Amino acid sequence: MNIFELVTKNRSYRRFQQSEPISTQQLRGLVDLARLSPSAGNLQPLKFILSNDPARNETIFSCLEWESYIKDWPGPAEGKRPAGYIMILGDTSITKDFGCNHGIAAQSMLLGATEMGFGGRMFPNIQRDRLRALLKIPERFEILLIIALGVPRERVVITDAKDGKINYWRDVNKVHYVPKRPLDEIILDL
Amino acid sequence: MNIFELVTKNRSYRRFQQSEPISTQQLRGLVDLARLSPSAGNLQPLKFILSNDPARNETIFSCLEWESYIKDWPGPAEGKRPAGYIMILGDTSITKDFGCNHGIAAQSMLLGATEMGFGGRMFPNIQRDRLRALLKIPERFEILLIIALGVPRERVVITDAKDGKINYWRDVNKVHYVPKRPLDEIILDL
Repeated sequence: MNIFELVTKNRSYRRFQQSEPISTQQLRGLVDLARLSPSAGNLQPLKFILSNDPARNETIFSCLEWESYIKDWPGPAEGKRPAGYIMILGDTSITKDFGCNHGIAAQSMLLGATEMGFGGRMFPNIQRDRLRALLKIPERFEILLIIALGVPRERVVITDAKDGKINYWRDVNKVHYVPKRPLDEIILDL
Repeated sequence: MNIFELVTKNRSYRRFQQSEPISTQQLRGLVDLARLSPSAGNLQPLKFILSNDPARNETIFSCLEWESYIKDWPGPAEGKRPAGYIMILGDTSITKDFGCNHGIAAQSMLLGATEMGFGGRMFPNIQRDRLRALLKIPERFEILLIIALGVPRERVVITDAKDGKINYWRDVNKVHYVPKRPLDEIILDL
C-alpha cells in the first residue's frame, strides 16, 4: 500500500475480532515506529505501556470513554473488544510540555497497525485517575493517549461533510459513516 | 516502501535543494493526507496555508526558530532553504482545544512527502505574532505548527542514545547524527 492507501484505510474502528490476537512482538514493532518518529527538540519524552493480556485489556477497556455522537452506547460488547492496547505516557522527568508528540507517535503506530492488517482507534478521553490507580502508574508519567488495536469487524466509509456537519453515524446495515470536510474548505486562500 | 522504511527514511532535514520545486498540487496532496487522518471527535478543526512562492517562503523562513542544540546557526543559507511550507492552523471557531491533532496531521504529511521524494521538518517554535502580522492571518486561527519541505541535501543518521544523551550533532563530513532512545528504555515494564 502506498501512503495514500494506508492513510485512507486507517479508519477509527469501534468493533474488533476480539479473539484474533495481537502479539507482544507486533506491539513492540509499532512502538518502534513511534520511536523513529520525530519529537520536538528530539527530546523523546514518550513512554509506552503494552497490553494484550485479557485481564489488563479489560482494565483498560473499563477506563475508556467510547462515544461522542452515538448516544447511549457504552462501547463494544464482549467478543467485539480490542485485542490489545498501547498506552502513550509523557515522562515528566524529561519535559512537562509534550506538545503534539503523542499525535505524531500515534499516527505512525496506527499506520503500522493498518499495514499489519489491524485497525485501531485513539482515545484522548480516559478515566485517567482510575486507570492510574488500577495499573499503578507512577505520578511521574502523564497519561496522554491510548490506542486500541485489533482486527476490525465493521465497515467505515468516508463521506463529504456538507455545511460543516461532521457528526458520524451508523446505518441500518451497521456501516459507520464519517463525514470529512472537503479539501477546499480546509486550505485557506490567504 | 513499507511503513517501517517510510518512517525510518522520514528524518528532520535542515538543508534542502531550494531550486527543486514542490508544486501546489503536491502540497494539496499532502493536505489531503492530513484531511483523511483522525482528529479528536472527528471535529477536523485544522486549517492549512500553503506556500511554494519565493517571496512567501522567505517571509515564513524569517519567522522560524531553527536550532536547539547546534549553537550559533541561524538556519540554512540561501540556496539550501525549503522549497515550500505547509502551515497548520487551529480554527478556534470549531474548538479551542486542538489536542494532538496537528501532530497526527503533520506525521501523515511528512510520510507522504517522504514517499514523494521530499523531506521536511516540523517547527513548533515560530515567531507567531510576527508571522501573523506579515501574512495577515486572522486572530481566529491559532498558528500550531509549520512544516518545511524540499528535496533534502544532507545525510541524517540514526544512532543509539547512550545514557539518555539525545543531543544531535554534525561530524566533519556534515553528516547529521540523531540519537534515539532504545526500545527497551521507552517501553515500561509495568
